[in-house]
Amino acid sequence: MGGASLPPGFRFHPTDEELVGYYLKRKTDGLEIELEVIPVIDLYKFDPWELPEKSFLPKRDMEWFFFCPRDKKYPNGSRTNRATKSGYWKATGKDRKVVCQSAVIGYRKTLVFYCGRAPLGDRTDWVMHEYRLSDDVSQGSPVFQVIHMSFV
Amino acid sequence: MGGASLPPGFRFHPTDEELVGYYLKRKTDGLEIELEVIPVIDLYKFDPWELPEKSFLPKRDMEWFFFCPRDKKYPNGSRTNRATKSGYWKATGKDRKVVCQSAVIGYRKTLVFYCGRAPLGDRTDWVMHEYRLSDDVSQGSPVFQVIHMSFV
Repeated sequence: MGGASLPPGFRFHPTDEELVGYYLKRKTDGLEIELEVIPVIDLYKFDPWELPEKSFLPKRDMEWFFFCPRDKKYPNGSRTNRATKSGYWKATGKDRKVVCQSAVIGYRKTLVFYCGRAPLGDRTDWVMHEYRLSDDVSQGSPVFQVIHMSFV
Repeated sequence: MGGASLPPGFRFHPTDEELVGYYLKRKTDGLEIELEVIPVIDLYKFDPWELPEKSFLPKRDMEWFFFCPRDKKYPNGSRTNRATKSGYWKATGKDRKVVCQSAVIGYRKTLVFYCGRAPLGDRTDWVMHEYRLSDDVSQGSPVFQVIHMSFV
């Protein structure tokens, strides 16, 4: 669906539960996704302002979704500073549980982009929610995270 | 599309401009609408809690959209109390302009539902935004309003 437009008034506004329980779970399980609206990218190869043009969805809402292969060096997602060419993403706050019918199906980490080098970078308005499955112990298949990036 | 479901994460969240400039304008002009997501109903024949089941869209967002033929007795929309079987809709605040590229294309009126008879009814959490075109001088064809109803 790259570049296709939705009918007027339709938006991709998934809940955390839909994003993790449907999109991320099916992607990691290698199952078909009804509409391929979330592209796979190598997130840290890009500065945040380079990412919107890689989104499959219209850009007017100032939010974008991506799958990103999970970095195997940090299996529990505990790396807090992730560098790009012009700056770094820094985690803020505590990870939040994503719950479906009382079961924890994943976690959401919030990160903010800083221009420059840690710890002296300048905070920007680029924000990322990074979602991981709670049970993504890799067994050879690629493991993904799903990213909700916004400019707030 | 009655009863059809959208892929996970997709919502019908039109802006005022899309609702008036695309959906209401095309409906009143008798033109085709890409996805028939808004049913025509005679709004005041129903109490608000009877309306959600008449919506074509999934109900989880607690908001619903309807076309309603415009009451010819009140061409400027100035009737403020509109009775149903169990209560009445009462306008609140001033009408707001709906603007597209600096031009006023319509107006939005906000109404709240009260149970009982005016002026002694009890305010409820049912809210309606009623949109009309700014230039809907009827020339024989049916004139519509579009309603965004929510339970807040």
